Amino acid sequence: MLQDLPTLSHLLKVLQQVPYLASKNLYRVTAHFLMMSEAQMEQFCQALLDAKQKLTKCVICFYWREVSQDCIFCSSQKRDRTTICVVETWQEILAIEKTKGYNGLYHVLGGAISPIEGISVEDLTITPLVERVEKDAIAEIILATNQTPEGEATAIYIARKFKDKKITVSCLARGLPVGSSLEGMDRLTVFKALSERRPF
Amino acid sequence: MLQDLPTLSHLLKVLQQVPYLASKNLYRVTAHFLMMSEAQMEQFCQALLDAKQKLTKCVICFYWREVSQDCIFCSSQKRDRTTICVVETWQEILAIEKTKGYNGLYHVLGGAISPIEGISVEDLTITPLVERVEKDAIAEIILATNQTPEGEATAIYIARKFKDKKITVSCLARGLPVGSSLEGMDRLTVFKALSERRPF
Repeated sequence: MLQDLPTLSHLLKVLQQVPYLASKNLYRVTAHFLMMSEAQMEQFCQALLDAKQKLTKCVICFYWREVSQDCIFCSSQKRDRTTICVVETWQEILAIEKTKGYNGLYHVLGGAISPIEGISVEDLTITPLVERVEKDAIAEIILATNQTPEGEATAIYIARKFKDKKITVSCLARGLPVGSSLEGMDRLTVFKALSERRPF
Repeated sequence: MLQDLPTLSHLLKVLQQVPYLASKNLYRVTAHFLMMSEAQMEQFCQALLDAKQKLTKCVICFYWREVSQDCIFCSSQKRDRTTICVVETWQEILAIEKTKGYNGLYHVLGGAISPIEGISVEDLTITPLVERVEKDAIAEIILATNQTPEGEATAIYIARKFKDKKITVSCLARGLPVGSSLEGMDRLTVFKALSERRPF
């Protein structure tokens, strides 16, 4: 029946390619777009096309920067320029910045080593990271990859690269999240919280 | 920090308005769009703008139709033109058509009566439905609104409109979904399944 409505079925197909729009939500999201006025639709599309044209990746830290200006992190003189926090994707930077607990530089790897997904070391920005650390006299790198097998493997790989160098390599603390109870927590988290306990 | 990247923050704001993109998925969806090539992005926008320009609502059943052709339901001579299935939104038609168990006409109400959401009888296409039923010698209307308080209230309201008329008003069967067990089912569904039991 949808094949009789080529425009609608094409729209559904296009929206289906957007991640996290599962089959049930797909129709609701499509309904949302069909409810928009033409002007709203044009504004929406303009925002997308603008993003494509006006955003580019910083060649140093690989975070997004406006084409018209320098990278907000790499060009900042207010930040601690001796520390680099290494993250998998740019979204993690937003999470860290929200805490206001970090004032150093960043490095976006572009993912994590994953043989299953076909992501190898060459696909990540590890070589630029090593070059950058050597050139810019970095004192500490914080490995803030995700707590997944892939994220941890990537952290181990990067840590080895700096083993013989005079540089502090640290990683994020593992343990119980704020507001959690021991009872509901998974075994591995409790184990890590125990084994990495610290003086009170 | 996002305010230093106006294009990115504008994109996030625009995508945030799309329903079912909760805060966590929002960044991932944004990342998906930023990963698109410019050509892909243009195709995506074209599909949206096309939908706006090439789709319009049928003035009889209020389902979508291509501007260039007649309504696939209302203009079809292969369908049973004496039965109308009344649904809240066009998405429900897709669900019903998938079953291949119905061959009549449709009528999209455009929602359900909901004082809380400020949707009143006048906002729905109930008057056109009544006119249509009188004009086209309809024999049966099937009330296929959702099993929510709003959906049921709307069904009751519509059923009353046809009370004194020579027309069969039916509603969808209520009971246990296929594959379900009595044990896991909510009380009200079991009650309805019992009270609306039928000869085996």
